[in-house]
Amino acid sequence: MAIKITGTGSYIPESIETNADFEQHTFLNNDGSHFKHDNTVIIEKFKSITGIGERRYASNHLNTSDLGFFAAERAIENANIDPEELDYIIVAHNFGDVKHGTIQSDTVPSVAARIKHNLQIKNPKCVAYDVLFGCPGWIEGTIQAQAFMKAGMAKKCLVIGTEALSRVVDKHDRDSMIYSDGAGATVLEVSEDENDGILSHETASFTYDEAHFLRFGKSYNTELCPDTRYIKMDGRKIYEFALTNVPKAMKECLDKSGKSIKDLKKIFIHQANEKMDEAILKRFYRLYKTEIPEHVMPMSIHKLGNSSVATVPTLLDLVLTNKLDNQELKKGDVILFASVGAGMNINAITYQY
Amino acid sequence: MAIKITGTGSYIPESIETNADFEQHTFLNNDGSHFKHDNTVIIEKFKSITGIGERRYASNHLNTSDLGFFAAERAIENANIDPEELDYIIVAHNFGDVKHGTIQSDTVPSVAARIKHNLQIKNPKCVAYDVLFGCPGWIEGTIQAQAFMKAGMAKKCLVIGTEALSRVVDKHDRDSMIYSDGAGATVLEVSEDENDGILSHETASFTYDEAHFLRFGKSYNTELCPDTRYIKMDGRKIYEFALTNVPKAMKECLDKSGKSIKDLKKIFIHQANEKMDEAILKRFYRLYKTEIPEHVMPMSIHKLGNSSVATVPTLLDLVLTNKLDNQELKKGDVILFASVGAGMNINAITYQY
Repeated sequence: MAIKITGTGSYIPESIETNADFEQHTFLNNDGSHFKHDNTVIIEKFKSITGIGERRYASNHLNTSDLGFFAAERAIENANIDPEELDYIIVAHNFGDVKHGTIQSDTVPSVAARIKHNLQIKNPKCVAYDVLFGCPGWIEGTIQAQAFMKAGMAKKCLVIGTEALSRVVDKHDRDSMIYSDGAGATVLEVSEDENDGILSHETASFTYDEAHFLRFGKSYNTELCPDTRYIKMDGRKIYEFALTNVPKAMKECLDKSGKSIKDLKKIFIHQANEKMDEAILKRFYRLYKTEIPEHVMPMSIHKLGNSSVATVPTLLDLVLTNKLDNQELKKGDVILFASVGAGMNINAITYQY
Repeated sequence: MAIKITGTGSYIPESIETNADFEQHTFLNNDGSHFKHDNTVIIEKFKSITGIGERRYASNHLNTSDLGFFAAERAIENANIDPEELDYIIVAHNFGDVKHGTIQSDTVPSVAARIKHNLQIKNPKCVAYDVLFGCPGWIEGTIQAQAFMKAGMAKKCLVIGTEALSRVVDKHDRDSMIYSDGAGATVLEVSEDENDGILSHETASFTYDEAHFLRFGKSYNTELCPDTRYIKMDGRKIYEFALTNVPKAMKECLDKSGKSIKDLKKIFIHQANEKMDEAILKRFYRLYKTEIPEHVMPMSIHKLGNSSVATVPTLLDLVLTNKLDNQELKKGDVILFASVGAGMNINAITYQY
């Protein structure tokens, strides 16, 4: 039995927020003090580390569930399946629907229930639920779909990652420039006669010391209500944590698959930060004492920023639709998905196309 | 291979909110108009339908993740396992941590990551995630744990249902009297040599017409900020929906297990509303043309209200610890878990003790 991705879709909001759009922001240190450099310097430094030149924000009238619905429609169309045949709709996100201009997360009904409703699926046996697992949520949803298929509980699953981080950013925090909105979706199907598809997976939750590296916290502007929370991160700690643990998890995952590092054609890694992703890649290949092949790691962060759970499925969709230069996938290619994020959670999947 | 509940635990907040505590509330219709009856009549009618005489509210300094942690500690102790051996911590909730006196849901890191952190579990291979599935979340988490076990991905799982609905109620809505706070947890383990434990399950998501029967909506007090949302429900629609669909799902589940209605010793049903639960029971037995046995449906709603995802595991824990009159379980007893809630989702599990 093989478990294969038979359709992909993504939704990239039209509204572009460039780095220049942040020039008038009042950025502050976490103690509320001002920086000695002006914004041009701050933004230049930000760009050199993260690689982010611009990001996308959802239109004001749209919510996380709408973004996910758009991506889902495209993935279903691409897979050419009848949506009534879906056994599961699994939606990864972290903040639910946050209406523009408000601060509350809306998760009742679940985002999955909203998307299923919008897809106008009638079949009640299509089970719709949300999974919260930080940025690695879409990969984790895929691992869960795999479990349902292996357990004989499902044959067709729709896995969606959708997030509108623009709704939870602190405009006084330089890190607000990282975050973006978007959605990616995939259809997974059981195929009885082949041996490609998902070959192996790896998941880990590091919570003992790391649980609060990414969290909901008050604004750096001490004059704002301390009870209003925004996405906050200990960038340095996350960087070190990721460099120590992500390459190891990727290696464990690839080794479990029985494939060699030479077979590996592409790495679809969570678009968190360009420098961090490059450092992870370097350490990963160093574990195999192997040179890094050219074009092995497609990147979308320069134009799309970090849209959390949406980055990996969106990146896959961009490559499969030939939207990234020097990036393509061929039948039989072995690829790796990998992510790291709030929890702190890490996961990876080895997949043969 | 059998999948068995080897430990249970619950946390019932100490603070009791009696019906009399609502006498000074200003209850309003959904259009903001006043009722013609006074509160004594409203509360009396409420009690006669729901059966709820009092409910529990979490202490101000505690959050949903704390309640879940307390229940989890007890379930782990009751199962007598080393928590480091857990493969999964699955936490069902719907609103995340809502700090007392605030309106934002905090789900980063996930509630599961917070509970794992508080349990001081170091093993990163213990995967901690949240599942959002309305009130049936704990049963759904159990079904997911079962999938991981059947797929060979887990041997020991901790499944928690935790919620603090008191943090999301509209005090001007009579339905606010329904909601309660609490947490229940179970440890599930694979056992190789027996055939009891989970025998069958059934899940369904009705989203085509029903997605918004339970939702986040504005206060009935039209003078309050319309952007501040509270838990809201179409009670009558839910009642009719539940009566039509829950007995059928319970029957499908029991029939799949191979057990007969005569074998069934107990039904642990979501404590949503006493009249509704009794009507569901009546229809369920009518489907089998069988009399309802005495004491078949333990109830906790009179004293504990509706704590969403927490009701079913809490009820199981109360029966197993002999805290409910005329209720006990014996080795070999066949029982049914069943729930209905936001989504609208319905699920059930047949289990042999």
